[in-house]
Amino acid sequence: MSQYFSEERSVETVNARMGAGVDPRLAEVMACLVKHLHAFAKEIQLTQAEWDRGIDFLTGTGQICSAERQEFILLSDVLGFSMLVDAINNRRPEGATENTVFGPFHVEDAPVRAMGDTICLDGKGEPYLFEGRVLDLDGKPIEGACVDVWSDNAEGFYDVQQPGIQPKWNNRGRFYTGADGAYAFRGIKPTSYPIPDDGPVGKMLAHLRRHPYRPAHMHFLVTAPGFQRLVTHTFVGGDSYLDSDAVFDVKDSLVAPFERLEGKDTAWRSPFDFILTAV
Amino acid sequence: MSQYFSEERSVETVNARMGAGVDPRLAEVMACLVKHLHAFAKEIQLTQAEWDRGIDFLTGTGQICSAERQEFILLSDVLGFSMLVDAINNRRPEGATENTVFGPFHVEDAPVRAMGDTICLDGKGEPYLFEGRVLDLDGKPIEGACVDVWSDNAEGFYDVQQPGIQPKWNNRGRFYTGADGAYAFRGIKPTSYPIPDDGPVGKMLAHLRRHPYRPAHMHFLVTAPGFQRLVTHTFVGGDSYLDSDAVFDVKDSLVAPFERLEGKDTAWRSPFDFILTAV
Ligand SMILES: [Fe+2]
Ligand SMILES: [Fe+2]
Repeated sequence: MSQYFSEERSVETVNARMGAGVDPRLAEVMACLVKHLHAFAKEIQLTQAEWDRGIDFLTGTGQICSAERQEFILLSDVLGFSMLVDAINNRRPEGATENTVFGPFHVEDAPVRAMGDTICLDGKGEPYLFEGRVLDLDGKPIEGACVDVWSDNAEGFYDVQQPGIQPKWNNRGRFYTGADGAYAFRGIKPTSYPIPDDGPVGKMLAHLRRHPYRPAHMHFLVTAPGFQRLVTHTFVGGDSYLDSDAVFDVKDSLVAPFERLEGKDTAWRSPFDFILTAV
Repeated sequence: MSQYFSEERSVETVNARMGAGVDPRLAEVMACLVKHLHAFAKEIQLTQAEWDRGIDFLTGTGQICSAERQEFILLSDVLGFSMLVDAINNRRPEGATENTVFGPFHVEDAPVRAMGDTICLDGKGEPYLFEGRVLDLDGKPIEGACVDVWSDNAEGFYDVQQPGIQPKWNNRGRFYTGADGAYAFRGIKPTSYPIPDDGPVGKMLAHLRRHPYRPAHMHFLVTAPGFQRLVTHTFVGGDSYLDSDAVFDVKDSLVAPFERLEGKDTAWRSPFDFILTAV
C-alpha cells in the first residue's frame, strides 16, 4: 500500500510526519487542527478557486494588522471563536457571574477612585449610578475586591481611540470594596458601537449580511485574592443590538437593568451584583 | 431558553446570524467552516494562551507575505491542505496520470522549443533525457499536446529565484507533440530543495520536528484540446526525501525512473508517459 498522500488518508499522512520529541500538547493540538481542517475541505468539497480566495482573505487580514489594529482577533470574534474559547476556559458553577470576552480596550492601572466617584471626565452622556456588591457563592461580601471598569463615551468611542479628544482615563476607573463588598460609581449609559468594519472582516460581514454593531455595555474586570478573575460586561437592557451582537458576547445573565431611581441625586441607576468563584 | 451564545449551541448561534440573501455557496462554506473550527476548539479544549499564540502565528504569517513571498500558501502546503484541495478537485479515472500541486514557480509563456532541445541554459547539472508520450486513456497518442516543463537548477533554485544569476528561462520550455504523441527534451536531474523556512511556517516545522525539504522533481503542465489540464511533477526515483516531502506532493504513480541509457549521446534518461482524461 502507498505510503504517500491520498485524499482518503490525508489526515493520517500529515500527522504521522511529526518527528520525535515534539511537545506533547503541541502535537495534540496540531493533529486535532489538521483533522478538522481536512474534514472541512472534504465535507464542503472546497474548490481550488474558493481556497485561492481564502488565501487572499487570510493574507489581507494579516496585512491590515498593526500596533493599533488586530484583524485576526476581530475575525475570531465575529466567528464566535473568541467567545467559544472564553466559554471553554471559564466554566463556572451555577450562580457565579459568567465571563465574557475581554476586548481590546482595557488599559492597565486605571486611576483608583473613591467609592461613588464618577468615571466620566468629559461630562457627556446620560448619567447613571452603577452599584451593587461583590459576593462569594454563599452570598458573603468580598472585602478588598478590585472592580476595574471601562466603557465608551456618548459617541461610542473609548478614550484610547480618541487621544487628544477625550481626556485620558475618561470612563475608566478602579474601585476597591470594603467589608460590605459594595461598589458604586457614576458613569454614563454606554453606547452601542460598530467594530472596525473597513477591512477584510468588515467586507466578510457585509457578504454574510451581518451588521458590525455591538450592543451597549460596561466592561468589568473583578479580581479578589482567593477568587477566580472575572472578565465580563453588563449589557444595557433593551439595547436594540442585544440579539445580534457582532461578536456574540451577550449572555442572558449579563443583561442588566438600567432603571429610574427616584429621590436620589442620580436619577438613573444600573444595579448588578458580581458573584465570584473561589480558586 | 436563551437566545444568546453558549458553549453548547455555539455553532448554531453563529451560523443563524447570517442574513437573507447571502450567496448560497458562501453560506454553505462559512457554516461548514464555523462548524469545524468550533469542533476543533471543543475537542482539544483550546486554552486562551494557546489561542493567543495562534493569533500571533496567523498575524506573523500574514505580515511576512509580499509580492515574492506567500506564507499562507506555504502554511496550507505543509498542513497537507493544498494537496487535499488539489486531490478533491482532480479525481481521475484509473490509469490517468494523477495531478499534484502547481507550486509557485511556473511562468507563463516559456519558450516553445523543438523536440529534443535542451532546457538547461547554464550547462550546470547532471544531463538527462526526459522522454515519453502523451496518450489518452485508450493509449492513443494525443497530437498537439503542449508539454510545459520547469525545474530548479543544480543548486536547487528556479531561475525566477535568481534573476541576474541564472539565464532567463533556464530549465524551462514548452514542447508540442506531433502525431505520435511523443515528447523529448534534455534537462538536468532536478535537485531537492527546502521551502522557505525563515518565517513563521519554518518555525512551526521546527517545533513539529519536520524538515523543510522537497524531493527532487520536474514540473509538468500538460494541456491538449479536449482533455483535462494536467498539473503534475515527476519525482526522481530514489530521492532521499520521497517519503517526507515537506508539502506532501508525492504520489506513487509520479515517482519516475532516472535510469542509465546505453549507447546514446545522453547517458541517462527519465521515461514517463502522460495519460490525459477527456473533458
Ligand atoms: Fe467594549
Ligand atoms: Fe518545485
